[in-house]
Amino acid sequence: MNIQQLQIASQRLRDNKTFEWFIVSVILISALLIGARTYPVPDSVVTVIRWLDLGITVLFLFEIVIRFMATEKKSRFFHSGWNIFDTAVVIVSLIPIEDSEMALLGRMVRIFRVLRMVSIIPELRTLLNSLLRALPQLGYVVLLMFIIFYIYAAVGATFFAHINEELWGDISISMLTLFRVMTFEDWTDVMYETMGTYPLSWLYYLSFIFLTTFAFLNMVIGIVVNVLEDEHAREKAEQEEKDGKATLDDLMRELHSLRQEVQQLKQPTDK
Amino acid sequence: MNIQQLQIASQRLRDNKTFEWFIVSVILISALLIGARTYPVPDSVVTVIRWLDLGITVLFLFEIVIRFMATEKKSRFFHSGWNIFDTAVVIVSLIPIEDSEMALLGRMVRIFRVLRMVSIIPELRTLLNSLLRALPQLGYVVLLMFIIFYIYAAVGATFFAHINEELWGDISISMLTLFRVMTFEDWTDVMYETMGTYPLSWLYYLSFIFLTTFAFLNMVIGIVVNVLEDEHAREKAEQEEKDGKATLDDLMRELHSLRQEVQQLKQPTDK
Amino acid sequence: MNIQQLQIASQRLRDNKTFEWFIVSVILISALLIGARTYPVPDSVVTVIRWLDLGITVLFLFEIVIRFMATEKKSRFFHSGWNIFDTAVVIVSLIPIEDSEMALLGRMVRIFRVLRMVSIIPELRTLLNSLLRALPQLGYVVLLMFIIFYIYAAVGATFFAHINEELWGDISISMLTLFRVMTFEDWTDVMYETMGTYPLSWLYYLSFIFLTTFAFLNMVIGIVVNVLEDEHAREKAEQEEKDGKATLDDLMRELHSLRQEVQQLKQPTDK
Amino acid sequence: MNIQQLQIASQRLRDNKTFEWFIVSVILISALLIGARTYPVPDSVVTVIRWLDLGITVLFLFEIVIRFMATEKKSRFFHSGWNIFDTAVVIVSLIPIEDSEMALLGRMVRIFRVLRMVSIIPELRTLLNSLLRALPQLGYVVLLMFIIFYIYAAVGATFFAHINEELWGDISISMLTLFRVMTFEDWTDVMYETMGTYPLSWLYYLSFIFLTTFAFLNMVIGIVVNVLEDEHAREKAEQEEKDGKATLDDLMRELHSLRQEVQQLKQPTDK
Repeated sequence: MNIQQLQIASQRLRDNKTFEWFIVSVILISALLIGARTYPVPDSVVTVIRWLDLGITVLFLFEIVIRFMATEKKSRFFHSGWNIFDTAVVIVSLIPIEDSEMALLGRMVRIFRVLRMVSIIPELRTLLNSLLRALPQLGYVVLLMFIIFYIYAAVGATFFAHINEELWGDISISMLTLFRVMTFEDWTDVMYETMGTYPLSWLYYLSFIFLTTFAFLNMVIGIVVNVLEDEHAREKAEQEEKDGKATLDDLMRELHSLRQEVQQLKQPTDK
Repeated sequence: MNIQQLQIASQRLRDNKTFEWFIVSVILISALLIGARTYPVPDSVVTVIRWLDLGITVLFLFEIVIRFMATEKKSRFFHSGWNIFDTAVVIVSLIPIEDSEMALLGRMVRIFRVLRMVSIIPELRTLLNSLLRALPQLGYVVLLMFIIFYIYAAVGATFFAHINEELWGDISISMLTLFRVMTFEDWTDVMYETMGTYPLSWLYYLSFIFLTTFAFLNMVIGIVVNVLEDEHAREKAEQEEKDGKATLDDLMRELHSLRQEVQQLKQPTDK
Repeated sequence: MNIQQLQIASQRLRDNKTFEWFIVSVILISALLIGARTYPVPDSVVTVIRWLDLGITVLFLFEIVIRFMATEKKSRFFHSGWNIFDTAVVIVSLIPIEDSEMALLGRMVRIFRVLRMVSIIPELRTLLNSLLRALPQLGYVVLLMFIIFYIYAAVGATFFAHINEELWGDISISMLTLFRVMTFEDWTDVMYETMGTYPLSWLYYLSFIFLTTFAFLNMVIGIVVNVLEDEHAREKAEQEEKDGKATLDDLMRELHSLRQEVQQLKQPTDK
Repeated sequence: MNIQQLQIASQRLRDNKTFEWFIVSVILISALLIGARTYPVPDSVVTVIRWLDLGITVLFLFEIVIRFMATEKKSRFFHSGWNIFDTAVVIVSLIPIEDSEMALLGRMVRIFRVLRMVSIIPELRTLLNSLLRALPQLGYVVLLMFIIFYIYAAVGATFFAHINEELWGDISISMLTLFRVMTFEDWTDVMYETMGTYPLSWLYYLSFIFLTTFAFLNMVIGIVVNVLEDEHAREKAEQEEKDGKATLDDLMRELHSLRQEVQQLKQPTDK
């Protein structure tokens, strides 16, 4: 009974708007502290930041515990990726860190706390989920693009490695160089260099740019069509609900049987 | 009575097409004067420009007064943002300015007069309003993008600050550098520099580019879908008006009751 | 009678597919000659090119004459912009040019002959016309964009002229610099320079980039919506033709009057 | 009979999922070997790579033979472009190559083996086919773009060749320079150089950028509209199938004849 009461109290607190806004402001302060640490600050401020940081960690721990208490089936709490993420961030924040190696990790974890903004605000969570849902549908375009990159990188590393070791030394460096060419970042410098040895190598770059631009366009169009289709399907479902699902064929059948009845009416009268 | 007559006369002048075109040309001349001031001009021309500028200020003042007189409820005049903007620009233009500090402010205000083109031409006003209306719908995407920028800037300022103080010195400079990376402006120079210390830092840049490109694409698609939906809703409303809102279900019901009547007809005949 | 026969013969020649293909190949050869002239060629080849060029001019003259003869109302021949363009190009080509000043003009006219490809191939003409038709609808977005450019250029020329005369010297140079910023071409170099004097000038660049990107996006979306609407209107027209323009309301009225007749039937029977 | 049994066994093997996955992994290993060759590797590893390469060639040969055996009409095997491609790659891989000239060709062929990924995975084949199908529909836009490039390159080679031989030397180099301008890659450097001689040459670059951007936008919109139309046509076909193709006109006709019968009913009753 005691646990039940605690659960209900936890749920009330969790669903409380003021509590939610309080947590959002704590996340905001934590984000500002991270920003402040990147400026040169006097030691006294560093001490204040440390104490504030400790306070934030405690508050986050408290919030996670409340959320855990409010869950009806405790075992399902860790089915949500966001809950696992939140718990992991809080637990790592708790570990006291002093030496410089771990200090960097500690700062990284504190930075990832800002992502808690996404886990707290439902609209952002929905947005991120819909972004992630769109990704697998584009899987084959991404695979095709990777194959294009791999083949061009292999050709580049084979022919251009002796011209510029830093750009075409091996296949992974070549792929990075090709990504640079795709973003049009000083790509002509790369091209003019290889054109000194192979005057026709502009064909290599232009064909690569055309292929990737075309594949990228297709990816964009793929997303647009997906979004519009979802939109369309939703609209059609609404429309059908409004129409009560009467189709032209239902009408036709109804009309046909009506006509038969009228014809039956006529025959006795003709007799 | 006198005031009423004045109001009607003002309204007539305000709605006069010739007057509107006259004001548009005055704004155009004012824009040209601003442009002329940026060229090295002899002193005599500067004097002419000053007198013309005074004339424009007086004309603008006159036009604002006319518009104010033409308004039926004087208190509602300042409910429109454009009216406040116009009045502020005219009042600040009236203040005589001589010393160099204020001179710059004076020139700024004169430049903003060109924006009056937007407040005068209704089509531009509509366009700007529709642009502004589209913004809040994109609020959450912008928030998500800001979170991505903030986290990457925090990571960048933590790890790369000692490599290049000017690019990664603190979190705000890092965000500017990341914006530069997003526009692909010499981003490989930034990357190659940090790759000297952290050979895997290309992961940082590539993941950032993918995330922001993807979020940007989603923003664009969001706008497109919004626009198309508005379009679609408008079309559907038109269609329904044309159809007189008869749906397939209305037809079905009508047909059903007709059939019942025919069946009632049959029964007496069968008797 | 003789003239009539000539007209019919001209029309037959003009509409002849082989003749059309012959003219297209002549334009292609003329385009290749233009390209050839940009390479260093021996004098003997230059002589050949001159003779070929003369032959092409004569053929173009002949083709224009044929097209003019084939036109039924001679006065309407010059109503078409393409006909005026073709005639002008041919006439200027006929003028013998020797001195270097005119030689450049002569070469320019020969280059514009390639545009005859567009005037000859109907599909290209249609495409160009549809591109031109889309422009005016975007007029107000272009005007808004020009106002943004003008205001930012005026601000830039006022504040940054003393920093870099070559980039911000006057309002027209400033607009060119802003166009460069809009294309992201070394825009950070421009920004870092002015940030040395005005540390907050990044606000100027970022707001400009956001405004122009947003306006550009709106222009693109404007074109897309226009195209889709045209498409949609065409489809709807086709659909309506197929449906014989029977609407749900027509059906409803028909059904209503049928029901009234059935009710009239019932009443005598009830008597 | 023996051949028939062999054919059935081949078909069974070809359609076996495990066999397909096995071939995909062989292609993956072959891709990794290509990548490995671009790194500096000790001689012992080179020997291992050679043996693995031989094994892959043999496996590919085996798979091609199986696919050929499984084909019912042997003559139709080479009607598929992918089969020709696969056979060519395998046959060229079989030729023993030692001297350096041929070694490069051999490496190229091995790189193209990665493309077999596309020929094996049906989804990628479908994707590539749909990309290729979209191309011809864009033919006229591409032609128009080429004409724009050609004319601007001719003008550029005529006027700017004496300014910078390397950028504007002849018409083909000028086209490459213009492509660079279109990608905004250091285009202002190119422009500022020619503006030294022709101060108005910014008109040349800006008009070129506007024309190509506009043509490119039209191409993109062309693809989007094509995709949406296909989508729409597919949807409409589905809808019509569901409706059993009853149109409003069918209903109208049915209703009309029903009314005539009711009127015939009324007349004897009125008598």
